[in-house]
Amino acid sequence: MLTLRLKLQQVLARPAFEKFILTLIALNAVTLGMETSNAIMAQTGNLLLYVDKIILAVFVLELVARMVADFRGFWKDPWRIFDFVIVSIALIPASGALAVLRAFRILRVLRLVSSVQAMRRVVSGLLSALPGMGSILLLLGLIFYVFAVISTKLFAASFPEWFGSIGESSYTLFQIMTLESWSMGIVRPVMAEFPYAWMLFVPFIIATAFTVLNLFIGVIVDAMQSEHAIEAHAERDAMKHETGLILKEVRELRAELALMKAKTPAG
Amino acid sequence: MLTLRLKLQQVLARPAFEKFILTLIALNAVTLGMETSNAIMAQTGNLLLYVDKIILAVFVLELVARMVADFRGFWKDPWRIFDFVIVSIALIPASGALAVLRAFRILRVLRLVSSVQAMRRVVSGLLSALPGMGSILLLLGLIFYVFAVISTKLFAASFPEWFGSIGESSYTLFQIMTLESWSMGIVRPVMAEFPYAWMLFVPFIIATAFTVLNLFIGVIVDAMQSEHAIEAHAERDAMKHETGLILKEVRELRAELALMKAKTPAG
Amino acid sequence: MLTLRLKLQQVLARPAFEKFILTLIALNAVTLGMETSNAIMAQTGNLLLYVDKIILAVFVLELVARMVADFRGFWKDPWRIFDFVIVSIALIPASGALAVLRAFRILRVLRLVSSVQAMRRVVSGLLSALPGMGSILLLLGLIFYVFAVISTKLFAASFPEWFGSIGESSYTLFQIMTLESWSMGIVRPVMAEFPYAWMLFVPFIIATAFTVLNLFIGVIVDAMQSEHAIEAHAERDAMKHETGLILKEVRELRAELALMKAKTPAG
Amino acid sequence: MLTLRLKLQQVLARPAFEKFILTLIALNAVTLGMETSNAIMAQTGNLLLYVDKIILAVFVLELVARMVADFRGFWKDPWRIFDFVIVSIALIPASGALAVLRAFRILRVLRLVSSVQAMRRVVSGLLSALPGMGSILLLLGLIFYVFAVISTKLFAASFPEWFGSIGESSYTLFQIMTLESWSMGIVRPVMAEFPYAWMLFVPFIIATAFTVLNLFIGVIVDAMQSEHAIEAHAERDAMKHETGLILKEVRELRAELALMKAKTPAG
Repeated sequence: MLTLRLKLQQVLARPAFEKFILTLIALNAVTLGMETSNAIMAQTGNLLLYVDKIILAVFVLELVARMVADFRGFWKDPWRIFDFVIVSIALIPASGALAVLRAFRILRVLRLVSSVQAMRRVVSGLLSALPGMGSILLLLGLIFYVFAVISTKLFAASFPEWFGSIGESSYTLFQIMTLESWSMGIVRPVMAEFPYAWMLFVPFIIATAFTVLNLFIGVIVDAMQSEHAIEAHAERDAMKHETGLILKEVRELRAELALMKAKTPAG
Repeated sequence: MLTLRLKLQQVLARPAFEKFILTLIALNAVTLGMETSNAIMAQTGNLLLYVDKIILAVFVLELVARMVADFRGFWKDPWRIFDFVIVSIALIPASGALAVLRAFRILRVLRLVSSVQAMRRVVSGLLSALPGMGSILLLLGLIFYVFAVISTKLFAASFPEWFGSIGESSYTLFQIMTLESWSMGIVRPVMAEFPYAWMLFVPFIIATAFTVLNLFIGVIVDAMQSEHAIEAHAERDAMKHETGLILKEVRELRAELALMKAKTPAG
Repeated sequence: MLTLRLKLQQVLARPAFEKFILTLIALNAVTLGMETSNAIMAQTGNLLLYVDKIILAVFVLELVARMVADFRGFWKDPWRIFDFVIVSIALIPASGALAVLRAFRILRVLRLVSSVQAMRRVVSGLLSALPGMGSILLLLGLIFYVFAVISTKLFAASFPEWFGSIGESSYTLFQIMTLESWSMGIVRPVMAEFPYAWMLFVPFIIATAFTVLNLFIGVIVDAMQSEHAIEAHAERDAMKHETGLILKEVRELRAELALMKAKTPAG
Repeated sequence: MLTLRLKLQQVLARPAFEKFILTLIALNAVTLGMETSNAIMAQTGNLLLYVDKIILAVFVLELVARMVADFRGFWKDPWRIFDFVIVSIALIPASGALAVLRAFRILRVLRLVSSVQAMRRVVSGLLSALPGMGSILLLLGLIFYVFAVISTKLFAASFPEWFGSIGESSYTLFQIMTLESWSMGIVRPVMAEFPYAWMLFVPFIIATAFTVLNLFIGVIVDAMQSEHAIEAHAERDAMKHETGLILKEVRELRAELALMKAKTPAG
């Protein structure tokens, strides 16, 4: 059993095996893309579906092999769990209400992210800024909730399509936050009935713009800080080298002087 | 009286009491959200309104207790005044023209901001950048006023809905500043009648974009500066430590030399 | 004549006089704003126009006084020339084709900018970033010109309203650059006739977004640099103080040693 | 042959020749712009086309001369290849399907960029940030591909105009990424048929906004870093000077002491 694990680990870690999986992911991306074309499907549909099934089978085997090779490590690595979820989607029988899941098989292409070191680092970098943003995201959530409840209360009766429920109001407020058709599409029609509606939506736009700006600044400052930290480290090292040289010279001087002093009375 | 105050202060400062209030705020957020649904209101409307009244009563009692405990401190703390205003809204009899105030009871959820330390800090951080922005906000206000007066003078007769009064022009200019439907929705129709209208609106867009950009840069530079100041402080401390070491060595060297000198003539 | 100049200079420099002018500017802003309302004009129109004329007269007298007090200095100060142009607009007989100039009397409010030190500094700050942006603005102009000529050539016949001439194409391209209705309003209709039109407009959007981003970054880096320069200066000063202390100690040490050496052979 | 090359190189490097070419580029920009006006073409059309042909001939001769002067250097300089491509476009017989190429003759104006040093530097600066952005651009491409395949699969049947093929879906997703009419124009109509469509498009908007933000931050940090590196270099130099002074003093001190020590036993 142990030897099987070791052998599996060796095979899975081989660059050739990694390249093989990457090629399969890329090939699968192409076949899944081709499946969207009716013309291509009419011609080579069966082949495409067949290739897709084979690639899926390889992926399942690969993940099972990885689990056998290192079961604990598998579940501790968020990228492996990500792979597991993505591959699992394709295994759910996609019929009836779940037929929509067939469209999500393309998510397997995202295995490119988990399989290429450089891509992993980019995504980790993107996500690394999030934890420090917790409070500001909570604040944004609060602003949305408060404005969603108020606008539902006030406008649900007159504009059920936009503000019929808290969910619909949240969607409309998200649209307003992105500034898409906020005035001509939403607020001007609402103002035709409630002339003071702008007193709700203009502050909402300013508040969310300001909050999102601060979210962005947080990410920028975070990115700069880590850049700067590296530079500052280099600078501090250069300084330490310089001052270290002086310190060494002065200490040697003291030592020589002490030696001299020890000699002088004897002289 | 004094003992009552002390006791109240002790109770109000207890973590358990704080948690109790936070739970009530969260519960109230949920019930006020549920009140927006007609289906839920038909079923459990009375219960929701009842819970709302009880929670409001607790909030009023809490604020009265805080005032009794430390009347001056209460009115000096902007967050307490914020709580007071928010809770007071619910006490105004919301009938007739003020019926709209019922929708604003949800503002009580914002007590989450004033009650949680981390949220307070985020909002304080957001607002801290504003005072330095006074001149630039005044400039933005001036730009708006000047363009609002000009566009009202020129277009009020032909486009009363958009530029009928300074207020309506300001709203339309705000919409143009956010770039929402500015051309297809507003400026192209205006240009059909006044072909040179773009000479007013394109400079307005550029001027406000530039001013708002500088507002943003102000906030970013402000945020970076405080970040940088902390780092620079750490660097300077490291440098001071290094140079301090050298200075100490050199001074001790001088002292030893002085001692030697004092001995030498005696020797 | 010289004494008149000196006296005028003294009067014009008095804080009381400055406050008087500022009050007039603010008052004029209010009266010009009130003139946009037909209801107010019907009631107190004559009074408003009368006040406007008096304030204009004071402004003209003030500028004449400033010219008399220091003619060369007046024409060297860009803010004074700005005042001169703004006040002059009101003196042009606004009838016939120039009736539109009446609407621009409100520009006088911008004297607030030239008269308040803090506002001057903000505007100078905004404009100070521009000279360094010359090349990038020229590049943006080139991009606009090239795309305007191409789209006029290709689409003038089919869409004369949007791309009828270089001027109209430039306006439409500016709208596309601001992303307002670029797809649903312009490019999708164009693509209905020229299916490959996106190959022109999508690169245009990306190119201008990238150029404008770099314009913004230029302004940000410029702002940061000046902030940083101040800090760096402070840091360098602190460092110089520290190293200066050490240098002084070491030099005094050498001097003492030299003194000792001079004594020793004599001892 | 060699002398011809040397002579050509001398002529091509002359400032007067450079100015002559720049003048021709500017003149050509004007004539190509004038060609878009039917009124001008009716009057002076033949002259304009004649001037265009002459300028094109000069450009061709110039490029041939440059190739003769330094054939290898020509094909190593990306700006020369850029010139070559731009001028070549005008030489392709623009008839039939290629008639559209006539509109692209204006691209010759971009020779201003390759001919003016300052403009070259700006464009190089813009492009220099791109290589470091490779991974993030690849990620953006992946996000687009995944969402394009999913939305084509799900919505092609109901909304062929927007999501008929991967290409059409990509264009629509680009429009959604720029936030143009994303909700009122696309997502709300789609939601009328697929109520949960927002679960696809809202995450797409957030994901692309976040990715593009990080692209921007990358460019900003890159620009700042190079700025900062220059400053940091200056600071480090100043520090090195200071510490160098100290080090020199201390070393001289040691040397003097060593000299003293050497003398003392002899004294």
